[in-house]
Amino acid sequence: MSTSPRIQPARPAGPQRYVPADHSRVTFDGGFWQSWTETVRTVTIPTQHKRLEEEGFLEVLDFDKPAGPLARPIQPSGLSMQHFFDSDFGKWIEAASYTLKTHPDAALEAQIDEIVAKLEKGQMADGYLNSWFIRREPEKRWTNLRDLHEMYSMGHLLEGAVAYFEATGKRRFLDVMIRAVDHIIDTFGREPGKLRGYDAHEEIELALVKLYRVTRDPRHLKLATYFVDERGQMPSYYDEEAKKRGENPADYVFTTYAYSQAHMPVREQTQVVGHAVRAMYLFSAMADLAHENDDPTLKEACDRLFDNLTGRQLYVTGGLGPSASNEGFTREFDLPNETAYAETCAAVALGFWTHRMAQIDLDAKFTDKLETVLFNGALSGISRDGEHYFYENVLESHGQHRRWKWHYCPCCPTNIARFITSLGQYFYSTRENELAVHLYGTNSAELSLGNRFVRLRQETNYPWDGDIRLQLAVDRPSRFTLRLRIPGWCRNAELSVNGAPVDLERSMTSGYAAIEREWQNGDEVRLALAMPVDRIYAHPAVSEDGGRVALKRGPVVYCVEETDLGGEPQRLRLPASAELSPRYDANLLGGATVLEGTALEAGTEGWENVLYRTAPPSLRERPFKAIPYHLWANREAGAMAVWLHEA
Amino acid sequence: MSTSPRIQPARPAGPQRYVPADHSRVTFDGGFWQSWTETVRTVTIPTQHKRLEEEGFLEVLDFDKPAGPLARPIQPSGLSMQHFFDSDFGKWIEAASYTLKTHPDAALEAQIDEIVAKLEKGQMADGYLNSWFIRREPEKRWTNLRDLHEMYSMGHLLEGAVAYFEATGKRRFLDVMIRAVDHIIDTFGREPGKLRGYDAHEEIELALVKLYRVTRDPRHLKLATYFVDERGQMPSYYDEEAKKRGENPADYVFTTYAYSQAHMPVREQTQVVGHAVRAMYLFSAMADLAHENDDPTLKEACDRLFDNLTGRQLYVTGGLGPSASNEGFTREFDLPNETAYAETCAAVALGFWTHRMAQIDLDAKFTDKLETVLFNGALSGISRDGEHYFYENVLESHGQHRRWKWHYCPCCPTNIARFITSLGQYFYSTRENELAVHLYGTNSAELSLGNRFVRLRQETNYPWDGDIRLQLAVDRPSRFTLRLRIPGWCRNAELSVNGAPVDLERSMTSGYAAIEREWQNGDEVRLALAMPVDRIYAHPAVSEDGGRVALKRGPVVYCVEETDLGGEPQRLRLPASAELSPRYDANLLGGATVLEGTALEAGTEGWENVLYRTAPPSLRERPFKAIPYHLWANREAGAMAVWLHEA
Repeated sequence: MSTSPRIQPARPAGPQRYVPADHSRVTFDGGFWQSWTETVRTVTIPTQHKRLEEEGFLEVLDFDKPAGPLARPIQPSGLSMQHFFDSDFGKWIEAASYTLKTHPDAALEAQIDEIVAKLEKGQMADGYLNSWFIRREPEKRWTNLRDLHEMYSMGHLLEGAVAYFEATGKRRFLDVMIRAVDHIIDTFGREPGKLRGYDAHEEIELALVKLYRVTRDPRHLKLATYFVDERGQMPSYYDEEAKKRGENPADYVFTTYAYSQAHMPVREQTQVVGHAVRAMYLFSAMADLAHENDDPTLKEACDRLFDNLTGRQLYVTGGLGPSASNEGFTREFDLPNETAYAETCAAVALGFWTHRMAQIDLDAKFTDKLETVLFNGALSGISRDGEHYFYENVLESHGQHRRWKWHYCPCCPTNIARFITSLGQYFYSTRENELAVHLYGTNSAELSLGNRFVRLRQETNYPWDGDIRLQLAVDRPSRFTLRLRIPGWCRNAELSVNGAPVDLERSMTSGYAAIEREWQNGDEVRLALAMPVDRIYAHPAVSEDGGRVALKRGPVVYCVEETDLGGEPQRLRLPASAELSPRYDANLLGGATVLEGTALEAGTEGWENVLYRTAPPSLRERPFKAIPYHLWANREAGAMAVWLHEA
Repeated sequence: MSTSPRIQPARPAGPQRYVPADHSRVTFDGGFWQSWTETVRTVTIPTQHKRLEEEGFLEVLDFDKPAGPLARPIQPSGLSMQHFFDSDFGKWIEAASYTLKTHPDAALEAQIDEIVAKLEKGQMADGYLNSWFIRREPEKRWTNLRDLHEMYSMGHLLEGAVAYFEATGKRRFLDVMIRAVDHIIDTFGREPGKLRGYDAHEEIELALVKLYRVTRDPRHLKLATYFVDERGQMPSYYDEEAKKRGENPADYVFTTYAYSQAHMPVREQTQVVGHAVRAMYLFSAMADLAHENDDPTLKEACDRLFDNLTGRQLYVTGGLGPSASNEGFTREFDLPNETAYAETCAAVALGFWTHRMAQIDLDAKFTDKLETVLFNGALSGISRDGEHYFYENVLESHGQHRRWKWHYCPCCPTNIARFITSLGQYFYSTRENELAVHLYGTNSAELSLGNRFVRLRQETNYPWDGDIRLQLAVDRPSRFTLRLRIPGWCRNAELSVNGAPVDLERSMTSGYAAIEREWQNGDEVRLALAMPVDRIYAHPAVSEDGGRVALKRGPVVYCVEETDLGGEPQRLRLPASAELSPRYDANLLGGATVLEGTALEAGTEGWENVLYRTAPPSLRERPFKAIPYHLWANREAGAMAVWLHEA
């Protein structure tokens, strides 16, 4: 067992691969993301620790005490949730770590160190680490990979350990987790005497790639590769495992291993199925391994699955996984609005996946979806005050949906937190002679291109405005290609360098405009993205959206809330001819562009005690306002709709 | 204990009350209902017995054998279902009994007698009767009225016993159940030493009124009255009972006793809440007791609840209870189509309730809804071949819904069976000088008005045609009032007696036209109900139906099935101007009137790999056919929609 690997800097990307920016070198010093990143750092991170404390999660780690009722059961059925509570520590530590380099915080580090110390103390002699099993039923460890999430939990701890090491240089947590990984290597694999298992809830695979990128230990990459390759091989490990437990595999509550994307080998999968978060974590790992192992078969599988997801199974908000019963996918084109599950974690994880895809295949089809989840289906998961959450991100409500302070399965809060505290990495990628700009928003960035160093300043009111100014600072004139994503939603873009227009049509590749030149200090690139209000229609097979229209401006999806309308937005009928005007409202939840127009409203006069009648409802004009979807449910509770009926 | 009560004929109704027809004196000798009643008698009743045998239900009654695994668990979670399997025997015996008087069947009687003999043998010395608890855990009897349905099961056995006694004159089953009721009287009530409990699943209340109408034993009526009066009194019996079991009442899985209409006294309830079947059985008992006890407070509560249900919570099909999670109601105007629970049992039970309401308050608002469920939301629960079923009656499908042969909770098949085998009683009611005709369809009936005797022959192609001919046969000229329901859906009705028009406007009371005259043998009444195709719109608060229209003709709600359209009906857009023509199709599942017209269809050209776009789908003309909703899912599986998008 190797517990002291060499720690190396990230490998330079090969000719076809990009390296994401170091998030700590991207500073959101103005504009849209400044307040979000500050809120998450100053409110979300500390309140999440407080909740972990209040809800008894920290007690779970007191390995010296008798187990007793570990943590308060938050729901009568909530106990089983505790099998994987370790994952929440992992994600919280990861989210917190991302803030430490730019904002050193000794108290925060102490909170993390305390958790790490407890984990280290509890870790079993052979490296096994899971607080539930160690304290409650150690004899049951590794007996049910199908249901009990042991490697999922370790994977999140591992991601936390890597992030904390990278932020602070402290090795203790990383070493704990390397010992845990060594134990997994000793236990699972194709070698004789090992179990040919893999966790039904993917997560450890992508975490192992992160670890490998720090340690360069080939065994770490090999383990990730084994898990992905073994997945879905028949006969199923889960069948064998159930029989060993004396259970009938046919009694599996989710009926099919498609729930865990384990119904067939991953390279044969063509339809995105099962639990949405699991699917996104798996696909993220597949993209990682396509990258690290130069494996085109995994890239091809990812491409097919991406096309299936985005062509048939994705909400307009970037939400995904419509059904609560399996927290995931059902049939293609099944996108109900009011019952949308669309878990925050799944949208965040779609961000992870698309980001990874773009590093190996710079195509705006990936980063367009990254932008979609960022401004809509993921961001909707956290309140403007930074301490209330949605687990399910519905696209329609009758007022029954409220943001909560905490949840019996609190996986989403820390997921959205780690997404936002590491946001900088999603904005830029580089390779030897290239700098790719994926996202827009005011920030100042320091970027490495091979051994060159570029400073870049973005100034823009994006997403409220499509005018973007990029100023470059280079130590000496330097030839490289600047690639700028021209968003798929934009039908009219103008690009210039130091005032000279760039012929966009000729410079476009896969949705990115390329400018190759010798860059001088102070060069200025301007990108003007026309941002009219778009009416969006869904594929006719999406029956829930038939006869309906969604409003979008730039990357931002809009919704109508009852608190603005004074009535249920479900009663609006938007004429095709209705004019819609954007207006920046500085007083709306920290400032946002709203859309205003006049629609028709189905009146309820004459409907007293009448539920059905042969005359359609009468329609009357009514001014209305739409707000960005991600801001909904931050004010008075009430009905909401993304998809409006057309008149 | 009294085990040998006097058995008396049904009490003549008071001046304000009607008595339903004796179902065995109403013969469906032609027309729509002939094939349904014959199918249920000759196919449904025998195959249901076969299923009870095949699925191991009959083994449950072998009280001599060790309990073992009582019946095969049909689902992993299915075991708890077996607490109330007795109820299925009760309903099956009831359904079968209704056929025995007109179609004596020694083999069928023998099947019933065998079940009765087993029940008698298993009944405990003190009268307690429930096969689950007696065989499995007798010490737990009466410890959990909140969850375990003991009285619900006994109530259904009691209904079966009354029906079997009335059909055959055999007292054995009735005596068994009277002993069981005596035991309940000894155990529950307000008297010192008794438990102040009541079953969370209503049913025994209405069964006790049926028993009372046979025995005239005031203790039977008193017990029903106690259960209804005690319901929802605080502190809740269910809280006390949970504490006795060592449980925290707050852990109740359904969170509120509104699930069982036990959150407040029944007379204070104004909104229909909770489990839909429970609600309908309770309200049926409340109507019965309003009748038997001359209790206007219960009638008023029923009126309020009926208005709430029909004004805010009822599907256009008469289905009710939109949600699977509580098998019941959610918020007002929440009527999702594809996820509609709309349990067959609930629609049947709405038939029971409305029928009872009409006997104490002859108002077509009640019998209109009886007709709605009969032709739509209840009848949809059974296949045209009489041996396949729906538990959930959705109003929209993408092809995932199939009728099943049997169910892990097989409550619906026997419920729809008993509804149809006793259908005659719903057609007519009488009192001293009145004969009320509630429903239309070919039949021959023999009816008592006080001590007079009237024979009535209805001839009609209803519901495919609105022309109805009623011929009366009286032994001697006789003065009485004939009341005919003029359906609420009909905007143009014509009525005549022996060819002489009746002024409808002057003769109408509460939706019934009255003809008072001295009737002669051979008098003929003709009623012509104009039956155009109606476009139905839902209240604007029903967001699922916004911009949509349902098609209805007479009492029959229509739907479009993929098998006829060759595509998903969700893609149709029906122009407001589209002509719709009825056509009788003799080849469609035994014959039915279909609607034909031309609609627009949203085309999928240009949507390959596109899920959202700014251009609406193109529309092209497409002929389509709609079939009666109750006939759906009897052919090739596929998508279906009741509510069509309007163009």
